[in-house]
Amino acid sequence: MADRIQQFASDNYAGICPEAWAAMEAANAGSATAYGDDEWTARAADGFRTLFETDCEVFFAFNGTAANSLALAALCQSYHSVICSSFAHVETDECGAPEFFSNGSKLLVAPTDDGKLTPEAIVRLATSRADIHFPKPRVVTITQPTETGQVYSVEEVRAIAAVCRDLGLKLHMDGARFAQACASLGCAPADITWRAGVDVLCFGGTKAGMAVGEAVIFFDTALAADFDYRCKQAGQLASKMRFLSAPWTGLLESGAWLRHARHANDCARALAAGIGNCAEIELMFPVQSNAVFVKAPAAVLDALRARGWRFYTFIGGGARFMFAWDSDPAEIAQLIGDVREATEMAIV
Amino acid sequence: MADRIQQFASDNYAGICPEAWAAMEAANAGSATAYGDDEWTARAADGFRTLFETDCEVFFAFNGTAANSLALAALCQSYHSVICSSFAHVETDECGAPEFFSNGSKLLVAPTDDGKLTPEAIVRLATSRADIHFPKPRVVTITQPTETGQVYSVEEVRAIAAVCRDLGLKLHMDGARFAQACASLGCAPADITWRAGVDVLCFGGTKAGMAVGEAVIFFDTALAADFDYRCKQAGQLASKMRFLSAPWTGLLESGAWLRHARHANDCARALAAGIGNCAEIELMFPVQSNAVFVKAPAAVLDALRARGWRFYTFIGGGARFMFAWDSDPAEIAQLIGDVREATEMAIV
Amino acid sequence: MADRIQQFASDNYAGICPEAWAAMEAANAGSATAYGDDEWTARAADGFRTLFETDCEVFFAFNGTAANSLALAALCQSYHSVICSSFAHVETDECGAPEFFSNGSKLLVAPTDDGKLTPEAIVRLATSRADIHFPKPRVVTITQPTETGQVYSVEEVRAIAAVCRDLGLKLHMDGARFAQACASLGCAPADITWRAGVDVLCFGGTKAGMAVGEAVIFFDTALAADFDYRCKQAGQLASKMRFLSAPWTGLLESGAWLRHARHANDCARALAAGIGNCAEIELMFPVQSNAVFVKAPAAVLDALRARGWRFYTFIGGGARFMFAWDSDPAEIAQLIGDVREATEMAIV
Amino acid sequence: MADRIQQFASDNYAGICPEAWAAMEAANAGSATAYGDDEWTARAADGFRTLFETDCEVFFAFNGTAANSLALAALCQSYHSVICSSFAHVETDECGAPEFFSNGSKLLVAPTDDGKLTPEAIVRLATSRADIHFPKPRVVTITQPTETGQVYSVEEVRAIAAVCRDLGLKLHMDGARFAQACASLGCAPADITWRAGVDVLCFGGTKAGMAVGEAVIFFDTALAADFDYRCKQAGQLASKMRFLSAPWTGLLESGAWLRHARHANDCARALAAGIGNCAEIELMFPVQSNAVFVKAPAAVLDALRARGWRFYTFIGGGARFMFAWDSDPAEIAQLIGDVREATEMAIV
Repeated sequence: MADRIQQFASDNYAGICPEAWAAMEAANAGSATAYGDDEWTARAADGFRTLFETDCEVFFAFNGTAANSLALAALCQSYHSVICSSFAHVETDECGAPEFFSNGSKLLVAPTDDGKLTPEAIVRLATSRADIHFPKPRVVTITQPTETGQVYSVEEVRAIAAVCRDLGLKLHMDGARFAQACASLGCAPADITWRAGVDVLCFGGTKAGMAVGEAVIFFDTALAADFDYRCKQAGQLASKMRFLSAPWTGLLESGAWLRHARHANDCARALAAGIGNCAEIELMFPVQSNAVFVKAPAAVLDALRARGWRFYTFIGGGARFMFAWDSDPAEIAQLIGDVREATEMAIV
Repeated sequence: MADRIQQFASDNYAGICPEAWAAMEAANAGSATAYGDDEWTARAADGFRTLFETDCEVFFAFNGTAANSLALAALCQSYHSVICSSFAHVETDECGAPEFFSNGSKLLVAPTDDGKLTPEAIVRLATSRADIHFPKPRVVTITQPTETGQVYSVEEVRAIAAVCRDLGLKLHMDGARFAQACASLGCAPADITWRAGVDVLCFGGTKAGMAVGEAVIFFDTALAADFDYRCKQAGQLASKMRFLSAPWTGLLESGAWLRHARHANDCARALAAGIGNCAEIELMFPVQSNAVFVKAPAAVLDALRARGWRFYTFIGGGARFMFAWDSDPAEIAQLIGDVREATEMAIV
Repeated sequence: MADRIQQFASDNYAGICPEAWAAMEAANAGSATAYGDDEWTARAADGFRTLFETDCEVFFAFNGTAANSLALAALCQSYHSVICSSFAHVETDECGAPEFFSNGSKLLVAPTDDGKLTPEAIVRLATSRADIHFPKPRVVTITQPTETGQVYSVEEVRAIAAVCRDLGLKLHMDGARFAQACASLGCAPADITWRAGVDVLCFGGTKAGMAVGEAVIFFDTALAADFDYRCKQAGQLASKMRFLSAPWTGLLESGAWLRHARHANDCARALAAGIGNCAEIELMFPVQSNAVFVKAPAAVLDALRARGWRFYTFIGGGARFMFAWDSDPAEIAQLIGDVREATEMAIV
Repeated sequence: MADRIQQFASDNYAGICPEAWAAMEAANAGSATAYGDDEWTARAADGFRTLFETDCEVFFAFNGTAANSLALAALCQSYHSVICSSFAHVETDECGAPEFFSNGSKLLVAPTDDGKLTPEAIVRLATSRADIHFPKPRVVTITQPTETGQVYSVEEVRAIAAVCRDLGLKLHMDGARFAQACASLGCAPADITWRAGVDVLCFGGTKAGMAVGEAVIFFDTALAADFDYRCKQAGQLASKMRFLSAPWTGLLESGAWLRHARHANDCARALAAGIGNCAEIELMFPVQSNAVFVKAPAAVLDALRARGWRFYTFIGGGARFMFAWDSDPAEIAQLIGDVREATEMAIV
């Protein structure tokens, strides 16, 4: 049981979903040409073109650290800078990977209360300096959904893209949980990406149910020039590429990418609904994807831990609960019960 | 059939072997802590410690490009240099990855006829310059088996390690096909690594039957300081690490790592035996692992291609045939027959 | 006159002082071995050893950007981080140079009101994270005097060094205006460097009256291993090195380094004394070296500009006045008069 | 005297020429805006525009290591490669600087007997590989005059530029001794640069008589985008820029840049003429600029060393003699006499 109740600590704790697994199994029949020159990789890339309704360029990287860092490096030179929110994963949890891949591009961090970058914050940072003693802003990166579990609406993405265009900046989207954003907004993937002005998207496969792998999708295909060389040099070209690409066919062609994301989002909403009206409990951010951030007295958090629940508190000291394709509603019900009990005991 | 007969072009064309697959399947039960803090990863690392009979430090990277480049970067500063053979994969086929990960370490290339680095060549390169206008030699890297399919004997590794010690150089082993070397030499893995003086080994999992993944093994554990940070920053830390580590348990605990390697080596020897005495055919290098390099008249190579065989000719214009855990002896017999026929026709 | 009254905008606007010039002239007699293997370079390095009363390792770089960045890179790997104040020049005005030279080391910025880093801030930043998803703190850098013109006392440097030792961090001092700090404190240079626990100092030559050039001084000489290679690779090894080193002999052997610094500090104090009691004028920071930061109504600043005075306002909107070895007291008197008049007019 | 006779070891051993000195002295009057926003820097840049008869972009770097590496980095991404001759200084004597500044661009080295790159060698290297496992060729660099003292004729530069255009490669010229090349060819500087198809030139100031400094000149001005940021980040922006730029005005406006180069070339020809017909002496390369490479029996070289002459023998074991703006014909006469005597003694 220890195993089961720890799972809401992260959506990285989930395994491989059945659709991805089946595709890997199918891809494992016989031999295949290496380095992406195989039918699975072509099919996965085409799957993204169909999904996004455009002739985008698609690359497969091993993880989000690399996918985002390589994409940003492709948009920047070392003396350029990248504007991001103070909650951005590239700033807080990548151990300097963007700086490493770009050989020094600085992240310009916009302080935010909730993780969302605004057009105003972008303008402020992008225009604060115009001398060569400070890295020249070149890219904006937004995380969709944010690290706080909120989604940028279509209009919000458009507004950000508009200031980017005005300022000569490229727009990158970190979509580690892009599927959850689509599920939440109910929009076409194109609507919050290229149609809204996004140049490059990193679409997360790991948190969508794969073992490993992210897709880097260039909507502005000119920006993808020689990106295959960049991936290779940076240790992000899989020799048995089919095992990185086939799972995408399993997710995309079956619709599982969206179905699983909806499930994860539903789980988050269920938790929020179940504990939102507890005294002493505060939901820190609107619950718009698969994360719930819970502000609660220390005694409550301790009581939950004592019952075996695991969770991180790195954002504002609140407990973060994350849901995945395999999250079990029965366990969420149990978590709700435990939270309620812990709260009541804390009050008494 | 096109699918089947292309497979000898590379041992990267093979899929996932049953033992690795079964371990992935087992690892996929339930959720697990991310980033390597899971039982599978601990078990795989312990598996290496058992195999190598020493308390080494073990890290898991996604591919050989990254594993070797990160290991070399850990041994070097940017103004240092790495001595390698002119056939070394790090020099010829990594798109500048060692230079990228190390931020500029230069490879000093020893010309060789067969891919093997010698103590004499190392001494010559390491002592050719001693001024600050040239990168200071710091590491020697050898590929075991070499890119030409030969193995360094225990004595050869020891002799190289001895000059390294004398010259203050670290010794790195690129073991993309390390299993095949062990199978060929019939020695304990420790005998051609730390007992012989190797500081760091990159042990190839992909060519041993995994989907993805290499192990970086530090025998000199002091050199592993903060290597986990290095992997993370460079985009080589898997979140769902268990799927990178579990396959190793499948390979190591069952002995499949060695059994498959023996099979691949046997296949290479079978081909060599079957065609070695053909007129006009020359085996370019001693067949000591899973590769056979065949020098043959252009007409012979064309005839083979016409029958659907695929192979690379990047080394000296000869045809390279590689064998994997799944190579089918019946197909090798067919290849032998086709070579013999093509040769006879070419002569006539 | 436009030329003369702009000079207080920066101490970079001053030319070469007579002592540095005379040494260059002397060094220009005849030919000399290149790349530092000349008598002037040996003499300059010895001059620093005498000045600091210790057997330090000394290197000469072209400018402060490179000197500080190379020194930090020598103390860090790419996945490490550097703790600095939010006013630190390496953070605000080097266009990402520390990140570039180190291939990605992140600066961890401690917010401060006045530019001074405190032991508490260092502890807070150094202990805020201990996971591999965030760069591992490895170095602390302090600017002496700070970018706000204040000096760390001997006790303050010692206290910072003490926490560095406790936390396993190296201590670097950016001494772009180190001479002014010594002049201000009246202490031996050793007292605020190695005797207080500083590992590496970058001693500014440009702002001390040279045309170009900074000295990188390793008190912990083990940290200087191969630093000459690092300088060479990074484009910081002068072929005609004597013209970078000889000026130091002119400054050090004559005592001009300190005499000029005292003069510059005196100028700053004179301005502060002359305007400190003006209504509507506020000295933003204690005047402890060669800088005066003046908070004044916009009308006052505009009036000064109208009279031809040039100054920067990048710190808190206040006017910064900097003094150099050649600052003319008569002009400072004129500036004082202009400030007083402008203030009176603004009040009326 | 030891001082005087060592001077032919390198043209880096010479001091600052009178014209450069006078300009520095003039520039040292009063204060000036920092970082290149001064009249001297504008005047020097204009001087180059006049000299090259085109509206080029001009930047000033501290030394040749940086100038060439920054220029190449501006033309490349890390996964690109630079084609050069096996004698190229960037390959043999920059300690990996091009790889460092570009974060990993590989140098593809064309073996040559005399240091000259040919169109055929460029085509061979540029077309040898076309897969992503090897860095994509992007730039060709030639040294004018070569490290062996030869010059590319206008036709030779044009022929190289033509294959560059065909192959989509940029053309960079390392002109550490560009003045000597112009003096040797008697052509307009434009004729062997932009008119012949060169995109970027690094024009050496140090070997032309300056204390320090090289000019990076972009004839294709689109390639210069943000190059000022690149220089700043890489520690190559001088704060007191006037001392880097004013000497150029002294050299360019007086014609001294060419006059001194002619003198140095004349010295080399005088030595060649004086010893060329000695038995046992062989001039290794045509003497076309300010270098003479002398193949001589070991006894002869030893005898010269015994008389106090210093020289390097890093190219083919021959003695290299280099001449500068201040080389004294009387001493050359003495060197000629010593060579003749040493040769005669060696024969007897």
